Amino acid sequence: MLRRITFVSHDAYTNGKTGNTKLMDLLDEPVPGVGTYEDFNTIDWVREKSKDRDRHREITSKSKLSTPALLESISDAFSGWLLMLLIGLWSGALAGGIDILAHWLTDLKEGLCLSGFWYDHEHCCWGSNETTFQERDKCPEWQSWAELLGGSSVGASAYIVDYLMFIIWALLFAFLAVILVRAFAPYACGSGIPEIKTILSGFIIRGYLGKWTLIIKTVTLVLAVSSGLSLGKEGPLVHVACCCANILCHLFTKYRKNEAKRREKYAAAGVSYYFPLKTLWRSFFAALVAAFTLRSINPFGNSRLVLFYVEFHTPWHMVELVPFVLLGIFGGLWGAIFIRANIACTYFSVLEVLVVTGATALLSFPNSYTRMSGSELISELFNDCSLLDSSQLCGYISSPDNSNTIPDRPAGPDVYTALWQLALALVFKMLITVVTFGMKVPSGLFIPSMAVGAIAGRLLGVGMEQLALNHHDSAIFKSWCSPGADCITPGLYAMVGAAACLGGVTRMTISLVVIMFELTGGLEYIVPLMAATMTSKWVADAFGREGIYEAHIRLNGYPFLEPKEEYGSKALAQDVMRPRRSDPPLAVLTQEGMSVGEVEAMVADTDYSGFPVVVCQESQRLVGFILRRDLVISLENARQRQEGVVSASLVFFTDHVPAQPTSGPPAVKLRGILDLSPFTVTDHTPMEITVDIFRKLGLRQSLVTHNGRLLGIITKKDVLKHMAQMANRDPDSILFN
Amino acid sequence: MLRRITFVSHDAYTNGKTGNTKLMDLLDEPVPGVGTYEDFNTIDWVREKSKDRDRHREITSKSKLSTPALLESISDAFSGWLLMLLIGLWSGALAGGIDILAHWLTDLKEGLCLSGFWYDHEHCCWGSNETTFQERDKCPEWQSWAELLGGSSVGASAYIVDYLMFIIWALLFAFLAVILVRAFAPYACGSGIPEIKTILSGFIIRGYLGKWTLIIKTVTLVLAVSSGLSLGKEGPLVHVACCCANILCHLFTKYRKNEAKRREKYAAAGVSYYFPLKTLWRSFFAALVAAFTLRSINPFGNSRLVLFYVEFHTPWHMVELVPFVLLGIFGGLWGAIFIRANIACTYFSVLEVLVVTGATALLSFPNSYTRMSGSELISELFNDCSLLDSSQLCGYISSPDNSNTIPDRPAGPDVYTALWQLALALVFKMLITVVTFGMKVPSGLFIPSMAVGAIAGRLLGVGMEQLALNHHDSAIFKSWCSPGADCITPGLYAMVGAAACLGGVTRMTISLVVIMFELTGGLEYIVPLMAATMTSKWVADAFGREGIYEAHIRLNGYPFLEPKEEYGSKALAQDVMRPRRSDPPLAVLTQEGMSVGEVEAMVADTDYSGFPVVVCQESQRLVGFILRRDLVISLENARQRQEGVVSASLVFFTDHVPAQPTSGPPAVKLRGILDLSPFTVTDHTPMEITVDIFRKLGLRQSLVTHNGRLLGIITKKDVLKHMAQMANRDPDSILFN
Repeated sequence: MLRRITFVSHDAYTNGKTGNTKLMDLLDEPVPGVGTYEDFNTIDWVREKSKDRDRHREITSKSKLSTPALLESISDAFSGWLLMLLIGLWSGALAGGIDILAHWLTDLKEGLCLSGFWYDHEHCCWGSNETTFQERDKCPEWQSWAELLGGSSVGASAYIVDYLMFIIWALLFAFLAVILVRAFAPYACGSGIPEIKTILSGFIIRGYLGKWTLIIKTVTLVLAVSSGLSLGKEGPLVHVACCCANILCHLFTKYRKNEAKRREKYAAAGVSYYFPLKTLWRSFFAALVAAFTLRSINPFGNSRLVLFYVEFHTPWHMVELVPFVLLGIFGGLWGAIFIRANIACTYFSVLEVLVVTGATALLSFPNSYTRMSGSELISELFNDCSLLDSSQLCGYISSPDNSNTIPDRPAGPDVYTALWQLALALVFKMLITVVTFGMKVPSGLFIPSMAVGAIAGRLLGVGMEQLALNHHDSAIFKSWCSPGADCITPGLYAMVGAAACLGGVTRMTISLVVIMFELTGGLEYIVPLMAATMTSKWVADAFGREGIYEAHIRLNGYPFLEPKEEYGSKALAQDVMRPRRSDPPLAVLTQEGMSVGEVEAMVADTDYSGFPVVVCQESQRLVGFILRRDLVISLENARQRQEGVVSASLVFFTDHVPAQPTSGPPAVKLRGILDLSPFTVTDHTPMEITVDIFRKLGLRQSLVTHNGRLLGIITKKDVLKHMAQMANRDPDSILFN
Repeated sequence: MLRRITFVSHDAYTNGKTGNTKLMDLLDEPVPGVGTYEDFNTIDWVREKSKDRDRHREITSKSKLSTPALLESISDAFSGWLLMLLIGLWSGALAGGIDILAHWLTDLKEGLCLSGFWYDHEHCCWGSNETTFQERDKCPEWQSWAELLGGSSVGASAYIVDYLMFIIWALLFAFLAVILVRAFAPYACGSGIPEIKTILSGFIIRGYLGKWTLIIKTVTLVLAVSSGLSLGKEGPLVHVACCCANILCHLFTKYRKNEAKRREKYAAAGVSYYFPLKTLWRSFFAALVAAFTLRSINPFGNSRLVLFYVEFHTPWHMVELVPFVLLGIFGGLWGAIFIRANIACTYFSVLEVLVVTGATALLSFPNSYTRMSGSELISELFNDCSLLDSSQLCGYISSPDNSNTIPDRPAGPDVYTALWQLALALVFKMLITVVTFGMKVPSGLFIPSMAVGAIAGRLLGVGMEQLALNHHDSAIFKSWCSPGADCITPGLYAMVGAAACLGGVTRMTISLVVIMFELTGGLEYIVPLMAATMTSKWVADAFGREGIYEAHIRLNGYPFLEPKEEYGSKALAQDVMRPRRSDPPLAVLTQEGMSVGEVEAMVADTDYSGFPVVVCQESQRLVGFILRRDLVISLENARQRQEGVVSASLVFFTDHVPAQPTSGPPAVKLRGILDLSPFTVTDHTPMEITVDIFRKLGLRQSLVTHNGRLLGIITKKDVLKHMAQMANRDPDSILFN
């Protein structure tokens, strides 16, 4: 870089006397820094995209000339796929590594493997010869802390030793996590989803996807998960994947130099979390109803919904939609309460993190359902009891005859114990999740939200099951639930409850559909899931249309234009644009006649991030728009590199050199950095349309004209402030440009 | 309507002398017809959306005043969901009905049920006591035509009678179908997908989604499918669903009056066929690679990819990706050839439909794989042979020991016969599908394309299976395919081939992913399917980037802006706009000073669909834009309803009444129909950005300015013509506005 500047300066010097033309061409060359963005600013999507197209066109036209250029063009075309492959490999490896480590550290809280301290409980006992899972878990190689320290594994003292060690390890992990985040990468805390949504929309937060964030987030995520806090790792894993994408993007010129292209990769790495397709959701609903009707008519003479359907699942009955909708209402209410309560929580210091961790460890240890990890809990709750299942939840009283048909299943004492424990676990999880999310450690909320819903669903499911068992003859159950038949699946209720709570908290619809597919492997259970998540969304929306991520975006004041936000104002562009009636007139440059000193004074006097250029002050006819950063860099550059430029030198934006006295200092041509196609709307354009244009085209600003004259300017910040005002929120909460 | 006009005229008459103000306010009221579109025109998305928002705002503000208005507002909010429910119910019922009827008519070609002519073959034999399917199919209630007419079911003469009846019925069905389409609803022919894509993008084709099209398409689809032509019903069913959506939309004011809102519902009814999400496709790829890596690391200690995965399928081996990619290449080549050949076919008269039907029936009868319907064929080819399967394709030689493990399966004579028949069927299907699609009967191409691929895939699969069987010790198979193990699933090959061919023909990516999910019920087979469809898309794209639907859109000259079309021109807006340098200047109206006669003359002299309004001819500063249709209707309306309007009356678009001699005829105020926020770009805006703006905002036209002066106009047609020129296509192929 240094060499180049030296060379150019030399060139400019020796050719100085031959005329201005050469100099101007030099200045038309890219000046380093022009076209980049400052931190906490919004990118211009239109400009970034056309930059990428220029680059693409250049490579394509070159590729016809020589074989190396052709090869470069091919490698350029495939670099996108290669990059995706690398991102997939790396983030997949990290996710696997985090999982293995978190398992090990979680088990470390309970004990140690004698055959090798690096084994977790499950792998430690793999060599064991016991047949059932429960027996195998008690293999001699695995020693609890009580056994290691006190020698005995039973009795009150052993329980207390285990309890204390559990709390100490949890506190240690949490302390390490919060200290590491504080010291090395403050951006590594939280789930990262609100920030990534904002970055995807075009905002710049330097370092948010950097290598330090990646390293610290990976390490502290393991620690935070292992500490037993009520948090999940899905959100942070998205952040980790986006960090991988960002770092790998720097290997390819195509992505390194283009903010818009890079964001495409972040979105791809974050896997389809953010597709704002309201229509898809509705169309899915229509498709389902159609599939349903088709099933009632039954054209294939069996119960298949689709032509090439492979599997068949236990059916559910229409009557069950009532409890499913109830679960949806629960999920919606929980979502609304969670968001309110969570936003009301202030941020946590190190001490507060330790207090929450201590409380979590203290309260979760005695109850087996809270002691196990969130994903284990969900697995257990989703599980359908087979005859051989030894889980406490499946402690049904077997019927005496060993017939092949599935027997009536009256609940035994084990089930009632489990229900009590689950009810306590529900209350505990609901309270602790609210205070945990948003702490200064990596924390996701998929697993905790799903756990809350799964517990509620399983409770309702077992209740329904026993109801059906004891009231076979009632009008509700008579037609579809004959005695001896297993007509209610509590595991399905847990699944529906989990989806409802997740929907209530995040208001994610598309990804929920994807998750449903993965969970169920088919269309059979989509109607229950859909009924519950739709109810949940409606109920939660009634208390406020924001999901938890949008709420956090607003809390942080990020400039994010919500694609779905309803907007019902009759305001026009002239009501929102600056300058307002009472303000001084708009700061504009004229295309010729201003001196370097005047321009610099205007830049120094204002803090606008760009200036319109007009033909002359009288006509106010718009020529183009220039960004503050580009203008400052170019003027500095001209003063350093172009001989004779002083404050009195004229600045011009026209194509031709304006007439000027030959004695004066040389003029500075800045047409190269002038955006000749600035976006304009008229003063009568409704703000609804203006907002739509900002959203769809990803604009940074738009100029406002009336009958061809420049009137004012609307920036993204003005749009956001206006929308905040309309929604009766504090417009000053929008902090950044 | 008549009453209203009378009333207004009366009102205008009595108030005529009190002043002009009242008159003007009357004219500011909506004039019937203003704001609607002509046939074969493109809608203005921005205008339609802001109309809907105005309506919504009005209802919301009213809802605070009274309970009925509140109820109306609630019903308005839920009408979207109710509508979707109705569409789902109706289109689902129609799909079921079509299926049942088509089954019955198809079986009618072979024989009749004695216990009731309305039973198809399967239902006729439901009462039969035979145990195997093959035996049951020969139940005495079902009589072939030879039995009914000649008394015997075996022998050469019976075969000939059956053969003839088969051809006669096929010809009859095809004749009825083509005649009905001709006589009652020409729009009912073809798949309808290209037209629906165009309509969704904002084009108006009156009657394309009307009740006649619905009725005739439903009836003729049954006939066309039953005639045995090589066509599917998926595309036409989308058209039928969109017709249902359109008809039901007329029940709700919200949708009846808004072209944009209605299109949302069409899209939802057509179920997510057209989401141009290149990113989703790529992100899916990344997710898969990540899942893969996760599996290699195996954090859960088993082979699960996801935490709550329910099913597990027969695995596939990496080596098999080679044949899968080969299938992808086959699919891509077939897609490219199919599109070229199909586009080269000219359209068909009634006679030609009969010739194709006759040829199809004649050639398909002797071969059981071509005689069965496309979906039955695909079912059979996807099927994995279990030990009890009696299908010809599963005629493997059983091993002597009846061990529990699946034995080696050397192919028996049955399999070789089946392979020969399949090879012939492949050639036949490939040829006949090319000439069938695009005929003047309802015809989809999902099933035929998938059938071609499934046959090719099954052939390759059986080949691979026998290869593995005979070369267990070769380097390729040694590591993963031990003797006695069933390591290759020919059904999977058929599935992969089907997806590859469908991908090659349609270039649909998103819906293929959905179809994959439905076919496989899980992630296990997605990698093979993905590898094949991606290869297929790449290979086919190398011969031309258009899918069959885009090719038909272009063939028909519909104004459709392809969202994904790559576009690499350096042109600026000034190169594309009209008027060109050699043209006469742009026809503009001035905001005051023109007479009714002058305006009418300008409208009569030109055929533009709209006119810009400027401050004055000298300054050319833009005020707004007025649509030809609105202008014509308003001037006619003024001449009829406003007293004293003659050709010499002045027309003005300003807010104030311009100064004029009091003796003159009354002036006509047209500000109410003037669009005060027309879209503008500068002359220096690159066409790439302009195209992007047209696509994203759904514009009909944009005005072009230079330094605040109006220079010209760019319409959607200009954009399409320019893009056709860039792609070296005939720009005059774009027929409509």
